[in-house]
Amino acid sequence: MKQFVVTCLVVWFAVATMHAQFRPPQRVVTDTIYSEVLQAKRAYTVILPQSFEWNKEKQYPVLYLLHGMYGKNDDWAIQGRVLDVYDQLVLSGESCEMVIVTPDAGGGNPEEFQNGYFNVPDWEYERFFFDELMPYVEKRFRVKGDRQHRAIAGLSMGGGGCTSYAQRHTDLFCAAYAMSALMDLPQKGDAKTDNPDGKLAKLNRSVIENSCVEYVKTADKSRQEALRTVKWFVDCGDDDFLLDCNTEFYRAMRNAHIPCQLRVRDGSHNWEYWHTALYQCLPFASRAFMSF
Amino acid sequence: MKQFVVTCLVVWFAVATMHAQFRPPQRVVTDTIYSEVLQAKRAYTVILPQSFEWNKEKQYPVLYLLHGMYGKNDDWAIQGRVLDVYDQLVLSGESCEMVIVTPDAGGGNPEEFQNGYFNVPDWEYERFFFDELMPYVEKRFRVKGDRQHRAIAGLSMGGGGCTSYAQRHTDLFCAAYAMSALMDLPQKGDAKTDNPDGKLAKLNRSVIENSCVEYVKTADKSRQEALRTVKWFVDCGDDDFLLDCNTEFYRAMRNAHIPCQLRVRDGSHNWEYWHTALYQCLPFASRAFMSF
Amino acid sequence: MKQFVVTCLVVWFAVATMHAQFRPPQRVVTDTIYSEVLQAKRAYTVILPQSFEWNKEKQYPVLYLLHGMYGKNDDWAIQGRVLDVYDQLVLSGESCEMVIVTPDAGGGNPEEFQNGYFNVPDWEYERFFFDELMPYVEKRFRVKGDRQHRAIAGLSMGGGGCTSYAQRHTDLFCAAYAMSALMDLPQKGDAKTDNPDGKLAKLNRSVIENSCVEYVKTADKSRQEALRTVKWFVDCGDDDFLLDCNTEFYRAMRNAHIPCQLRVRDGSHNWEYWHTALYQCLPFASRAFMSF
Amino acid sequence: MKQFVVTCLVVWFAVATMHAQFRPPQRVVTDTIYSEVLQAKRAYTVILPQSFEWNKEKQYPVLYLLHGMYGKNDDWAIQGRVLDVYDQLVLSGESCEMVIVTPDAGGGNPEEFQNGYFNVPDWEYERFFFDELMPYVEKRFRVKGDRQHRAIAGLSMGGGGCTSYAQRHTDLFCAAYAMSALMDLPQKGDAKTDNPDGKLAKLNRSVIENSCVEYVKTADKSRQEALRTVKWFVDCGDDDFLLDCNTEFYRAMRNAHIPCQLRVRDGSHNWEYWHTALYQCLPFASRAFMSF
Repeated sequence: MKQFVVTCLVVWFAVATMHAQFRPPQRVVTDTIYSEVLQAKRAYTVILPQSFEWNKEKQYPVLYLLHGMYGKNDDWAIQGRVLDVYDQLVLSGESCEMVIVTPDAGGGNPEEFQNGYFNVPDWEYERFFFDELMPYVEKRFRVKGDRQHRAIAGLSMGGGGCTSYAQRHTDLFCAAYAMSALMDLPQKGDAKTDNPDGKLAKLNRSVIENSCVEYVKTADKSRQEALRTVKWFVDCGDDDFLLDCNTEFYRAMRNAHIPCQLRVRDGSHNWEYWHTALYQCLPFASRAFMSF
Repeated sequence: MKQFVVTCLVVWFAVATMHAQFRPPQRVVTDTIYSEVLQAKRAYTVILPQSFEWNKEKQYPVLYLLHGMYGKNDDWAIQGRVLDVYDQLVLSGESCEMVIVTPDAGGGNPEEFQNGYFNVPDWEYERFFFDELMPYVEKRFRVKGDRQHRAIAGLSMGGGGCTSYAQRHTDLFCAAYAMSALMDLPQKGDAKTDNPDGKLAKLNRSVIENSCVEYVKTADKSRQEALRTVKWFVDCGDDDFLLDCNTEFYRAMRNAHIPCQLRVRDGSHNWEYWHTALYQCLPFASRAFMSF
Repeated sequence: MKQFVVTCLVVWFAVATMHAQFRPPQRVVTDTIYSEVLQAKRAYTVILPQSFEWNKEKQYPVLYLLHGMYGKNDDWAIQGRVLDVYDQLVLSGESCEMVIVTPDAGGGNPEEFQNGYFNVPDWEYERFFFDELMPYVEKRFRVKGDRQHRAIAGLSMGGGGCTSYAQRHTDLFCAAYAMSALMDLPQKGDAKTDNPDGKLAKLNRSVIENSCVEYVKTADKSRQEALRTVKWFVDCGDDDFLLDCNTEFYRAMRNAHIPCQLRVRDGSHNWEYWHTALYQCLPFASRAFMSF
Repeated sequence: MKQFVVTCLVVWFAVATMHAQFRPPQRVVTDTIYSEVLQAKRAYTVILPQSFEWNKEKQYPVLYLLHGMYGKNDDWAIQGRVLDVYDQLVLSGESCEMVIVTPDAGGGNPEEFQNGYFNVPDWEYERFFFDELMPYVEKRFRVKGDRQHRAIAGLSMGGGGCTSYAQRHTDLFCAAYAMSALMDLPQKGDAKTDNPDGKLAKLNRSVIENSCVEYVKTADKSRQEALRTVKWFVDCGDDDFLLDCNTEFYRAMRNAHIPCQLRVRDGSHNWEYWHTALYQCLPFASRAFMSF
């Protein structure tokens, strides 16, 4: 008996300590989708709830979680260790089960590979996102598929992306959580780079054109009303070089009387900040799904 | 000018986003020391303060940070991402600069490799730690080297290890922070395993012999008085299978009127818990160094 | 114009700074109910949601929030400042709107006034609670009135009270949050006092008879199954003299495989602990109402 | 024996539960000082460390903690319940012992009573503070009295006051913690009120003249260097009407490369925010005293 108990203890240790390595692979699915819009394959990663495998009928809310410039689809799974936070919060009841989708909108150096969530010449990513990716993953991974159960979040370039998507598609998302967000380009104008026709210049111009700050400032009454139907959260570190455009965004929201949460925590523009942001982001999305 | 600003932005992004990869390697030093006691080379990893390289005269406090069963010297640097928390807390002033030493007391499967912080036949690790490792690293890495500036912490097997070390060497450590600690073996007795002469059996027996709970319960007045000179912190998740021996330890401390902090946070026996424990552990050690 | 703005600022300051005093009184209602069971009037206090006054059709979930020994009905409103936390959490979306009911189960010194949530000779408080108070307040204050929207919480004697109520009435409550709970009497036996027939002796005996720890330990399969339908939360300070019976309760729950959250935060048996506990308690109850 | 234990339990309950009322009065001292400068008595309240009474030789660091407009000297003790947080943090080691001084710079309605921390005609409060109050209390209450052990904090008008004091007296304070601070008057200009010669107009003009934001923006190299010797912390709620001038202050500090912490937590311009701010403020001051 004692022998058995000690053996159990050792096995438990082994499993507990090394669970990162031995985690069943099917919870994190990485695959590609061929995009007619982009005329290329695009990768995406999906984090599935624990019940997904055995509860074959259940449909889930969905959270789109966007990476930043230089990033790619499995950033959130690997560098953001989203599963560690997700499983803990679901176990303690602070988050509900959801499907988390982390698409690829870059793939590396923005001078070499086109980065960005907006439509630019030869890279109509936004069209791809809404017309191809979203319908496909929501069908494949048993997503409920209504606005009430669809939220979006992202970091840096993806923080601006998620905010802009939710601003212009208030009918599709119930909540948006922006981390260290590129809400606008600090340097406005023609945003020249070494190569004004290059991929980075295209990205820069698209960020300026889709400035989240300007969107709020220029929203008319009806647009403001629509923005009030979404739950907004802005989270940015006090040492982040993008802090100013985040506080400007928040100020614009307040001036327009659109409810929005703001948190400035200790930290900078890095994965430690984004990882810990998940402790707020997942409960926030869960509450939105549940119509608190 | 604009071109320059945008270029700066891109570089900043690149550096910020990918800082984990591009972090200057000299902050995390992994090396080996030949041990006469163990008759073998043992690896260790050291995390150095940012000022270490340019402030050649400065001496630092030291924190020994111990890994768990199945673990090894670079666990804390890689899986625990100690540098991410450390740099943030130093920047915000919540932690002081210190040298963090993470030695190797295992190297893998405890049936194959001897694991453990205590002296057992053919593995006098504790003797190695105090007689060889500690003097060597404290000299090599400009550690102040007095009790007031030496603390110890650890997870699981290392949580028990750090507590036991501080119990029996109250003259060497000013503070001990135990995470998810193996304070005792839940199953007492001869702790048989499949192979009672095997490495795991030796480890088990040593944990029982050095039970942190029994140590407190059997401490006489003079030993209790010595224990009161150390600052103690116990941190264990509510889903941790080792929770009971941690609350037993705390109860014994309270009965003996030895001040000790206890926290039970949400979480289990995993790296997410230990990573977040650093947010409490490093400030705790810092306060001890500063004689709060 | 400037004059106007400055005046606004001053008024804002005045209102903001002194809002505690000038808070509209109708949000906190204190009244009495005549109890046939107790043959006396009993006081109660109710905290109402902001929308209660103008949304005359809306029905709300309810949280019963119990005081401790020596306490009375308005303790939570005055010493616990529940409204300050409640309004903030509702505004930020972390709590849903609910009616909070704080009944009187004491009124002062337990040697003079009968204290306690259980039935004892001449004080069938539990019968009063379920047969008289609950139906009355749920009707009067537009409470939804189903199990899914009824939770219970409490501090110290009320922490034991809320746990025991939820244990024996799993059909009535969806969630229970115990703070610094008197889960059992540390000193078992006949619980004599100076006056074994006195009010305090009766209270002590009722706490032992309704021991939350024993209830879990002796629950049969069917009772365990019923207990699993309730969400449980145990929150106790590391300097609390009741910590041991809380960890014992948690251990019993874990042994019986009944999911339960445990938190041990820094603190003692005082209002600072209970006030800050509300930051966890109200979101916990809200999630239970919303079937996370 | 059992009788004794139960009696102890009851006494413990009584003391623990009602400790707010029965707290020994000598820890919170309220007294007056006659000011030659103001030609009147001014009240002040002092919070003393637990060891003050029995350790008659010990000298302490000091924290000046300033109230807001409409406030008075005992606001922090009564509405801010500073003792509850202070004692808990000292017990857990997160704060060191210190003397906390809360002077009176108002006394009520700013139209009736002169409010403010700056020199205005007939109310040279700043002169009173530095020439009379500070020397007096530091001598009377065994304060160490050097810059290294003197910090300042405050809320709203006192948040601007503490920041401005530390800006212009970098030789006197090692740290400043501003809560919901009136860093500037949102409405600039002559700041007229109904009565331009009235008390409120004088206060408004003095806030503009001592704008903390302008001070940083116009600081020359040498002044910037001096500002870098102080540790700064800005803490303001996301629902606070003064948020904008706090983020402006922070931006100015960053542009001038003066290290400063910023936190935006959930909350508004109220005592719940200031009470919880103490959990950051007291450790921050303690670390400054200890030269982290």
